[in-house]
Amino acid sequence: MQVKFFTELKKFSPDKMVKINLFETNNLFCDVYCLEPQQSQKLHTHHDADKIYFVLEGIGHFYVGEEKQTLGVGNTVLAPAGLQHGVENLSEERLVLLVVMSPNPNVKNKA
Amino acid sequence: MQVKFFTELKKFSPDKMVKINLFETNNLFCDVYCLEPQQSQKLHTHHDADKIYFVLEGIGHFYVGEEKQTLGVGNTVLAPAGLQHGVENLSEERLVLLVVMSPNPNVKNKA
Repeated sequence: MQVKFFTELKKFSPDKMVKINLFETNNLFCDVYCLEPQQSQKLHTHHDADKIYFVLEGIGHFYVGEEKQTLGVGNTVLAPAGLQHGVENLSEERLVLLVVMSPNPNVKNKA
Repeated sequence: MQVKFFTELKKFSPDKMVKINLFETNNLFCDVYCLEPQQSQKLHTHHDADKIYFVLEGIGHFYVGEEKQTLGVGNTVLAPAGLQHGVENLSEERLVLLVVMSPNPNVKNKA
């Protein structure tokens, strides 16, 4: 059985946000993102894929489309295909996110 | 911005597990499952869709394929397409799960 425990896997880098892959299938990927204070995932857009962020630890500043919200542990955010989105850690604590994206943009030739 | 806070949304029924939809797109759905002690999601199989469970509260007994594991908060489980899977709350506390499924089986005609 494929099981991952994020508290054992999370890690941080002074250089930039760290992405840790938990699972990858033809349909989706599931990552953990680890952000030190002041680190961010810059605004970007996926034209075909939807992304879900779930806040595991800390407080994130989320951007989706033209909107912005500051969200803590237990919040889930949808970044639908076609809308620019990103996240920034403007707090003084580390930020850890569970991230699911579907379809998996790393799979070029879906069955 | 579509944001959901599961602690405000979770609810339980004495009759059976409660599913609360957070988001639904052409590519995925994201639900919260709420199980009282002794409630379960029976073993079943999705032939095309992958499911991810994340334990938000409590302890779950997870079944994927022929395997079984007891998992607490912070664990993520992959139930890949084609493998039977289910979850049971054999503990004395409530169990709350974040569940993502992709592709969305409720969408019959994908673009």
